[in-house]
Amino acid sequence: MSNLNKQAGNISEKPGISSPEITNISAINQIKNKRRQQPTSEELINGILEGNRTSLSRAITLIESTNPDHFEKANEVVQGCLAQANKSVRIGITGVPGVGKSTFIEAFGKHLTQLGKKVAVLAVDPSSSLSHGSILGDKTRMEELVKDENAFIRPSASGETLGGVARKTRETIILCEAAGFDTIIIETVGVGQSETAVHSMVDFFLLLKISGAGDELQGIKRGIMEMADAIVINKADGDNIKKANQAKVDFNRAMHLFPPKKSNWQPKVTTCSSITKEGISEIWNTISDYFEMTKKNGFFQEKRHEQNQFWIMETINEQLKSNFYNQPEIISLLEQNKKAVQNNEISPFAAASELLKLYFNKGAKAQSDKGSK
Amino acid sequence: MSNLNKQAGNISEKPGISSPEITNISAINQIKNKRRQQPTSEELINGILEGNRTSLSRAITLIESTNPDHFEKANEVVQGCLAQANKSVRIGITGVPGVGKSTFIEAFGKHLTQLGKKVAVLAVDPSSSLSHGSILGDKTRMEELVKDENAFIRPSASGETLGGVARKTRETIILCEAAGFDTIIIETVGVGQSETAVHSMVDFFLLLKISGAGDELQGIKRGIMEMADAIVINKADGDNIKKANQAKVDFNRAMHLFPPKKSNWQPKVTTCSSITKEGISEIWNTISDYFEMTKKNGFFQEKRHEQNQFWIMETINEQLKSNFYNQPEIISLLEQNKKAVQNNEISPFAAASELLKLYFNKGAKAQSDKGSK
Repeated sequence: MSNLNKQAGNISEKPGISSPEITNISAINQIKNKRRQQPTSEELINGILEGNRTSLSRAITLIESTNPDHFEKANEVVQGCLAQANKSVRIGITGVPGVGKSTFIEAFGKHLTQLGKKVAVLAVDPSSSLSHGSILGDKTRMEELVKDENAFIRPSASGETLGGVARKTRETIILCEAAGFDTIIIETVGVGQSETAVHSMVDFFLLLKISGAGDELQGIKRGIMEMADAIVINKADGDNIKKANQAKVDFNRAMHLFPPKKSNWQPKVTTCSSITKEGISEIWNTISDYFEMTKKNGFFQEKRHEQNQFWIMETINEQLKSNFYNQPEIISLLEQNKKAVQNNEISPFAAASELLKLYFNKGAKAQSDKGSK
Repeated sequence: MSNLNKQAGNISEKPGISSPEITNISAINQIKNKRRQQPTSEELINGILEGNRTSLSRAITLIESTNPDHFEKANEVVQGCLAQANKSVRIGITGVPGVGKSTFIEAFGKHLTQLGKKVAVLAVDPSSSLSHGSILGDKTRMEELVKDENAFIRPSASGETLGGVARKTRETIILCEAAGFDTIIIETVGVGQSETAVHSMVDFFLLLKISGAGDELQGIKRGIMEMADAIVINKADGDNIKKANQAKVDFNRAMHLFPPKKSNWQPKVTTCSSITKEGISEIWNTISDYFEMTKKNGFFQEKRHEQNQFWIMETINEQLKSNFYNQPEIISLLEQNKKAVQNNEISPFAAASELLKLYFNKGAKAQSDKGSK
């Protein structure tokens, strides 16, 4: 240590001139205040309705905030935008990693803006808080679209639970629509239940696939194919064209095994290349046909209505469960009862009854404490 | 009317001798008391463990009772039988009406008792309280099996909710196993979510089908095929044999489209005739193969473990929801908020928040009242 001090002494500087004294403290405080000053909810709403991107981005940041103080304000903004929302079409796009979602959305989004549409691209990816935005986090993968003044790209909200991310995305859709975006694209990756959540917030659900080694149909995740309104085989270019066409035949056959959809829509299977742009315009034509048909037969409106009802109930049910399973007494008794069931000492129903009794009898206070927050 | 009275007069009898006076009132009261006296839970448990059918039937009646006084006693009996349960194999059988479930179970059950097995046949049919037992209600459809001393047939418990019926069936399984039944068959019809419930309480899930006009695969209910461990094409007799064999090929192809099962079991498709008994013994061989394989690779035990955990959570979640949605204040605010969401006056999430706030703030008392029951 003494050595180090001596060495430090060798490189120490001689005292120079000190900074000039601050003469105008009030001017500095004014600047600081200006920076600190957040726009009011009314200012945000007006900005959004005028199509101001800064207002839109700031309001989305409020929605995504975990600070409880922001909750009320975010709510006010959403509320103020609601009447101007619902005037878009919402398209969900899913596909496993490697299928080329970003390049597809870049090509598809550019096609839409060239048709004069205003396109917002959002994402639902509950894992992004861990992976720091695995999808849409890297905007450089959508180089063209990100520069397009008729496009707005926003990475997935982060959050521990799918429910939280879903809520934030649903409210972001409302703001984007109020800001004048008429085509909302929601990207999701096949993680857990996120496709189901996205399916419950879009009008049209598109499954992106690539042709593989002839076994495309093996290993398809349960239920995804049944949800799709269209399957698009991506990367149908170069040597891949033949395989992509074969995959199209296979998927078409498989799609016919499923029960007819409530919309009366027969899901379409097409191929495309995000590189050559082959097939991109046909996809939009297909989606337009779907919207024409379902707006005519009333399914479009009915589905949005059902989705709204679904999200009311889903939010309630998730909250009821989270309140229950987060009580410390419940956590420990649950652990205990699970073991007792496993050892055949108690039936699953008796185990559940005991837990419910504990919750409803003692829970009263803990719950009202929580609820009043 | 006066005519009728006159006619009645013509056939009226003259007063005869009256019944002798009752001399031994205490003897009659003794008999009446004896009849009224219900066996204690200990007597029921002992009876069940000895294989006494009357005790078994009485205990099941207790489980099915909606009288809250019976709840505690039913619980004691189940508790007392638990250690002797779990020693059977549980097979779920589903199929749409008309597929011949009853005749199949009659033929299959007789085959099993001839092999020396003790077979209990239960049913899950939440609609039965309305239709007065649409399945298994009419035991005459299982004429042979009902007379078989190694078989025990019990119609579906009635109940308004699937959850209630499922609980009762799960506990009935425990009693049947404790009474020495080593093969439990649970029948269900494709109503709402009842197949999913049955799938969550059996070791092996069998889907019964018949060959149709070549479009067997159309209209298959979502998810059912993915749940099946075997598909049996019934009524493969007479003119039907060719069509049944074609259906077998179609289903086999379709089954290969699904992702591999966690059990590593490749679902089998077979044909059979409940009339000629052709194919019946092969079905049992298939099921035996499944049990041998899954007991060896540990999946059998793992699945039972998971099912137990599932029913703890399921019971809790259902109860949390039912407590919430049955509060009169919630019912009226929910109705109101659903309309507000529909009119774009409030977002689904804000609507849900309002309801949750009401519940957790004011709900405390109402809940503890309920919970202490």
